[in-house]
Amino acid sequence: MSNEELAIRNLIEAWCRATEAGDVDALAPLMADDIVFLTPGREPFGKREFLEGSRQSVGNVKVRVHADVKEVRVAGDFGYCYLKLEVTVIPLDGGAPIPHTGYTIGIYRREGGRWVLARDANLVG
Amino acid sequence: MSNEELAIRNLIEAWCRATEAGDVDALAPLMADDIVFLTPGREPFGKREFLEGSRQSVGNVKVRVHADVKEVRVAGDFGYCYLKLEVTVIPLDGGAPIPHTGYTIGIYRREGGRWVLARDANLVG
Repeated sequence: MSNEELAIRNLIEAWCRATEAGDVDALAPLMADDIVFLTPGREPFGKREFLEGSRQSVGNVKVRVHADVKEVRVAGDFGYCYLKLEVTVIPLDGGAPIPHTGYTIGIYRREGGRWVLARDANLVG
Repeated sequence: MSNEELAIRNLIEAWCRATEAGDVDALAPLMADDIVFLTPGREPFGKREFLEGSRQSVGNVKVRVHADVKEVRVAGDFGYCYLKLEVTVIPLDGGAPIPHTGYTIGIYRREGGRWVLARDANLVG
């Protein structure tokens, strides 16, 4: 595994741990300022909308996330990864945990020596 | 627009026209042999399954496809594109046309001077 591939895998792991911790401030530097999120049934949205949505959900739910990375490839300052995501949403009001599963493809970019997520298609239903 | 970006845009256009024509043999060389298709609610599948599914649908429906390319980027022998897809499925038995719309992200690879689609996440619902 190359250092670049390892760096992208570490970024994905950091993203999952920050999501589980509800640490939205830790998520922000993991993504490009011009990131584009693609999700089913919705127009593309960006960093501000993602972070606002994450902040709103922190008070209502806990989240468990496991990312099973299937492939990482790097060419120059670009990389991509696809992975299987298992997300369990646990309502803080005592409701039953809700499992979600699905795949994502992410496009990564190296900015000043640091990798960030730049484009993301999320098929988790 | 670079020659590489143009080549990827031409590939997307060829894909749409082959789909509309029901010309499955013309689709096959536009994708890598190890292509991975990611779609909601389904495990990833490959070239053979995609082509078989396309052949089965040719006799039952006509398809109109419009791809609105939002971004193409190339680094070395890799590229990616995201686009908005408008697909209208027209049943050949006279049923009403069914519109579908959504985004896709594609990862492209240059193989021996020719670009092919290698990974595809399709959010069209």
